[in-house]
Amino acid sequence: MAGNTFGQAFTVTTFGESHGVAMGAIVDGCPPNMELSESDLMTDLNRRKPGRSQFTTQRMEDDQVEILSGVFEGKTTGTPIGLVIRNKDQSSQVYTQIKDIYRPSHADFTYDKKYGIRDYRGGGRASARETTMRVAAGGIAKKYLFEEFGTRIRGFLAQVGDIHLEMTSLDHASESVFFSPDPNREAEIAEFIGELRDAGDSIGAKIGVVASHVPVGLGEPVFSKLDADLASALMGINAVKGVEVGDGFGVVTQRGSEHRDEMSSEGFQSNRSGGTLGGITTGQDVNVFIALKPTSSIATRGKSVDRANKDVEVVTKGRHDPCVGLRAVPIAEAMVALVLMDHVMRDRAQNQRIAID
Amino acid sequence: MAGNTFGQAFTVTTFGESHGVAMGAIVDGCPPNMELSESDLMTDLNRRKPGRSQFTTQRMEDDQVEILSGVFEGKTTGTPIGLVIRNKDQSSQVYTQIKDIYRPSHADFTYDKKYGIRDYRGGGRASARETTMRVAAGGIAKKYLFEEFGTRIRGFLAQVGDIHLEMTSLDHASESVFFSPDPNREAEIAEFIGELRDAGDSIGAKIGVVASHVPVGLGEPVFSKLDADLASALMGINAVKGVEVGDGFGVVTQRGSEHRDEMSSEGFQSNRSGGTLGGITTGQDVNVFIALKPTSSIATRGKSVDRANKDVEVVTKGRHDPCVGLRAVPIAEAMVALVLMDHVMRDRAQNQRIAID
Amino acid sequence: MAGNTFGQAFTVTTFGESHGVAMGAIVDGCPPNMELSESDLMTDLNRRKPGRSQFTTQRMEDDQVEILSGVFEGKTTGTPIGLVIRNKDQSSQVYTQIKDIYRPSHADFTYDKKYGIRDYRGGGRASARETTMRVAAGGIAKKYLFEEFGTRIRGFLAQVGDIHLEMTSLDHASESVFFSPDPNREAEIAEFIGELRDAGDSIGAKIGVVASHVPVGLGEPVFSKLDADLASALMGINAVKGVEVGDGFGVVTQRGSEHRDEMSSEGFQSNRSGGTLGGITTGQDVNVFIALKPTSSIATRGKSVDRANKDVEVVTKGRHDPCVGLRAVPIAEAMVALVLMDHVMRDRAQNQRIAID
Amino acid sequence: MAGNTFGQAFTVTTFGESHGVAMGAIVDGCPPNMELSESDLMTDLNRRKPGRSQFTTQRMEDDQVEILSGVFEGKTTGTPIGLVIRNKDQSSQVYTQIKDIYRPSHADFTYDKKYGIRDYRGGGRASARETTMRVAAGGIAKKYLFEEFGTRIRGFLAQVGDIHLEMTSLDHASESVFFSPDPNREAEIAEFIGELRDAGDSIGAKIGVVASHVPVGLGEPVFSKLDADLASALMGINAVKGVEVGDGFGVVTQRGSEHRDEMSSEGFQSNRSGGTLGGITTGQDVNVFIALKPTSSIATRGKSVDRANKDVEVVTKGRHDPCVGLRAVPIAEAMVALVLMDHVMRDRAQNQRIAID
Repeated sequence: MAGNTFGQAFTVTTFGESHGVAMGAIVDGCPPNMELSESDLMTDLNRRKPGRSQFTTQRMEDDQVEILSGVFEGKTTGTPIGLVIRNKDQSSQVYTQIKDIYRPSHADFTYDKKYGIRDYRGGGRASARETTMRVAAGGIAKKYLFEEFGTRIRGFLAQVGDIHLEMTSLDHASESVFFSPDPNREAEIAEFIGELRDAGDSIGAKIGVVASHVPVGLGEPVFSKLDADLASALMGINAVKGVEVGDGFGVVTQRGSEHRDEMSSEGFQSNRSGGTLGGITTGQDVNVFIALKPTSSIATRGKSVDRANKDVEVVTKGRHDPCVGLRAVPIAEAMVALVLMDHVMRDRAQNQRIAID
Repeated sequence: MAGNTFGQAFTVTTFGESHGVAMGAIVDGCPPNMELSESDLMTDLNRRKPGRSQFTTQRMEDDQVEILSGVFEGKTTGTPIGLVIRNKDQSSQVYTQIKDIYRPSHADFTYDKKYGIRDYRGGGRASARETTMRVAAGGIAKKYLFEEFGTRIRGFLAQVGDIHLEMTSLDHASESVFFSPDPNREAEIAEFIGELRDAGDSIGAKIGVVASHVPVGLGEPVFSKLDADLASALMGINAVKGVEVGDGFGVVTQRGSEHRDEMSSEGFQSNRSGGTLGGITTGQDVNVFIALKPTSSIATRGKSVDRANKDVEVVTKGRHDPCVGLRAVPIAEAMVALVLMDHVMRDRAQNQRIAID
Repeated sequence: MAGNTFGQAFTVTTFGESHGVAMGAIVDGCPPNMELSESDLMTDLNRRKPGRSQFTTQRMEDDQVEILSGVFEGKTTGTPIGLVIRNKDQSSQVYTQIKDIYRPSHADFTYDKKYGIRDYRGGGRASARETTMRVAAGGIAKKYLFEEFGTRIRGFLAQVGDIHLEMTSLDHASESVFFSPDPNREAEIAEFIGELRDAGDSIGAKIGVVASHVPVGLGEPVFSKLDADLASALMGINAVKGVEVGDGFGVVTQRGSEHRDEMSSEGFQSNRSGGTLGGITTGQDVNVFIALKPTSSIATRGKSVDRANKDVEVVTKGRHDPCVGLRAVPIAEAMVALVLMDHVMRDRAQNQRIAID
Repeated sequence: MAGNTFGQAFTVTTFGESHGVAMGAIVDGCPPNMELSESDLMTDLNRRKPGRSQFTTQRMEDDQVEILSGVFEGKTTGTPIGLVIRNKDQSSQVYTQIKDIYRPSHADFTYDKKYGIRDYRGGGRASARETTMRVAAGGIAKKYLFEEFGTRIRGFLAQVGDIHLEMTSLDHASESVFFSPDPNREAEIAEFIGELRDAGDSIGAKIGVVASHVPVGLGEPVFSKLDADLASALMGINAVKGVEVGDGFGVVTQRGSEHRDEMSSEGFQSNRSGGTLGGITTGQDVNVFIALKPTSSIATRGKSVDRANKDVEVVTKGRHDPCVGLRAVPIAEAMVALVLMDHVMRDRAQNQRIAID
């Protein structure tokens, strides 16, 4: 109800504020007898981590996750998995200057209106730091899906500002500091981001995620279509303002004769639908795209109000990511993994489907 | 779990297949003492109804909804509201020809793979006819929101194929047979749709919905952000492949200094965010857009397979909408209404917010 | 949230008031490809029906259920099953005399305080007539459980007033007009109930339910232990004030050395636990008992107040059951069936257990 | 779904095994702006703690809870409250002897059958140690209910073996090492428990809980009646095998004329119903009773099997509680508090009720 639980069968409940004591999560419903250790979760946590390059925030967090329960002698037991990451950087003093001010395009105003209390420490619960736990939990889902079905879930930077990136290699994207699928454009991205930072400004981005080897039959009509749950999962990531499945907004100008993915005894002839029909997976790749707004914390002075509704000017000091999109890839992958995992289990409940390779 | 319930506090559970006995729903959690009658729900049901113009499917359904419970002496009692619409057109014979065939871009293939059974009667549960109950339930939410907060939720056709429509009048859109917000472009739309039908083809569309007089503070961090629940609600409508909140994919090329909605003591200076910050309503208009794929049932022959995976060719006989988007406006409005209603109640549970005008 | 949905994986959502238009339900999550027809549901509906003997209320309802969806060509399709029973006896006039009066031990007072509106028609939603839909939905669960696992769920009258009944035959109980497991005590029960009716009074009862051939491993630690979900399911039946699993309150005076069910390679040596350990089924019979309060509607004058809190006297006219417990057996069986069915599916989701015989 | 979350609006999700790294919980939905600190939760944690007297297990745990999030500057913020208690006593070596053995009346057998893996460390997730988090979360609910409505929730030992205790003082019960409501019987209880321990045996118990100053109107028809949710909450506590509301199983022999709580303009004349009618609170005290089975871990040798289904004999070494019921009072109070809190919020969502004193 209050919104901190994701999923129905494979559930993730999270807590934690940016500059509180710790971030944490409980993953409930994980199938038993899967090998799991903290190092399995660190891969993606490290990909998400700030300070990974000179182009992301320099906040220093090693983001070491600790598994508190649900694993015994190296295997999941079927009981809930408690996860925690202690925040090292708990200093809230740097934020006392914005104690009574609403930063433009941040959640400061709305949280205060909703709850009647202002946790001004670096965005509090609204901080993107909350996504550490999505990534950790998503790591569990990714591992299960890969071992059970061979499913791989890989994201990439599709566009940043006016730079459109060709999908050259998902593997390269995975390792690239910009998650760029095109090895030849990284210098260009670096230059663009550098310029933005020097200008005290930021930029939006478009991210894609491809899930391959997805079992057929996942998705629950009519309100939990796979597309619907993906949309919720992805739109719920900080800064996301748009979600597409398959051809997305491109379908607006497509004709039926062009859009429909024809089939033959060899299988589907195309994948404009993005791997779902009627909200249920076809067995093709599931393709999604998301749009992320430009970082709100910028060094350019902006107009706002304080808690007493008095006009003020706000400027963000310290170093922030000029493009939050550059760090969103592992988060988006994790959310796709959580959706697929949840639907594998929901499907089994009713349809007792057998694992495929 | 199985996906036929929407919402958490104001819940809508639906049943019914396109050519089954009836469509129905149970609306649970409706506040008591609101005046409600069947005629309140017929307004939008009539706006959604097929056969409304020569440009939509000619299936004849009067879609008369019956309230079976939850209302006594003209007022809601707080107990669940049972709704039912009997299907008049239950003839499944016309569909026996596709009994063993998967129509391209339909859910025929995926439902069969998921459930191992083929309900070939006009799409069965996957038919857009399922949305009658969303519209009926949405009508209850709309009424409450308007009476309690003055909230209005109005949709419009933003684009069909290459025809982009100016937002001239939401009121006109509401009554227009094409839900066009621009009275001057209707002839053009009619001509375009007519051409498509003659060509046995179809086209995608883009729909917008504006909710005004929305209370501040709605939306639950972090997984039930208002944006996330809107995305789920809208992406779950048949044929939708993309969802945007506010500037949507436009944010990809925006700079932070341009995107952020500055504030003054007079209020917000712009609304690029679409009425939410951190997933919580700001009190500004909530703006969303969706992309709908072209109708899959077209008179142009296409390649597919049958249940035995043998190659076949499929062509849809009978009259179908050349553009499903033309009928999606009341459905999208209803889903936005259900999300807002659910969040009003969820917010009250924790924060006991007071009604505003 | 508002309480009219039961279960998590196999869900039942119900609507309807005693003297409204109809009672109805939506059963979501039913496995596909199970044969199902209305006659499958009538067996238990007839066992629950009023007017079954001279000792139960003479209200005339044939309780003919109609399946509105989810079944095609005689088989479940996996989509939601809509159920409806039209109320024939909708006359609310007989109740106008209690329009402004709270009947003692009825829900009149509490519904009015909660919702601020009085639906005085025969108890409205609080009427035991609401349980028709539990019985109908339970019939679906019973059928599945029997076909898949051989599970049988049978209830019986264990005690009425001071008459304690020996468990002679579950089969006899199933057919007995009093659900008596002891064929030799029926005359005695009849006489006792007759006396109570003549005296204008009523009596409590104790009901038992035995589920045999229950799969091992059902129940979810820690808040959805099978015992916990059974307790909720049974305590939620009208008039129930106590629930026991296994030896129930008898354990208070048992020693550990006496209570513990020892095991050998032959299996469990006893079943004091009632078929669960740690809230998970052992594979033994699941045994539960419930206590039902005496019928509140009696012909003996009682003190109460009206809506203006003025003292009044209330007496129930017309014929009512002197013992609601006499009709509760099929309802209790249905609730046990719904709990087991839900847990079969929940268990599968996580543990993908295989069907047993 | 997997059972580790309690509640719908005020939710508690827990993790942790008896001898794992830590026990933890996430409390979601707590109203903002309530003062809260760790010491608020320690009162009941100390009442529940082992080693409180010579009559309970001597395991040494200081059970110091840490609040990890959701509280800022001493007040709740409306965001999820993370709680953790580190386990000091993680030694699992003492349990290696039962590694492959199912202890009678424990969950060893059923967890292994369900999950296919054996966490033999002191009961793992099935240990009563899991209830620390219920008590901690219940402390938050208790505090809110008391501050908002003056609600007090107090439990007591009603019976242990054949010793029936008079309800002399709830205040005394709260402080008594046996939770005895009768100060004069404590020596007798001590003697009885001492004898049992010397005999290497254990005994069952009956516990009562009284909630006073409960708001009228709590409880959701028809499946979330307050009674139903209380039954679930209480039956889900380790070792509980029976639940009663109000007169409980006593109603079986009551006549309607005797059972019904008559009303006058002064209010209810009695409270046999236990504070609910139709599953909704009347505003009277809510009274419940539970039966707890005798401790399963006893020093008396018993028959069982190992994982290979070979006959074995089991005897528990070390000191265990001869009566788990003696420590269950704070746990039962916590569960009642969680149910009432959840229903306050659920009721507000739909009915926007105003706080009463």
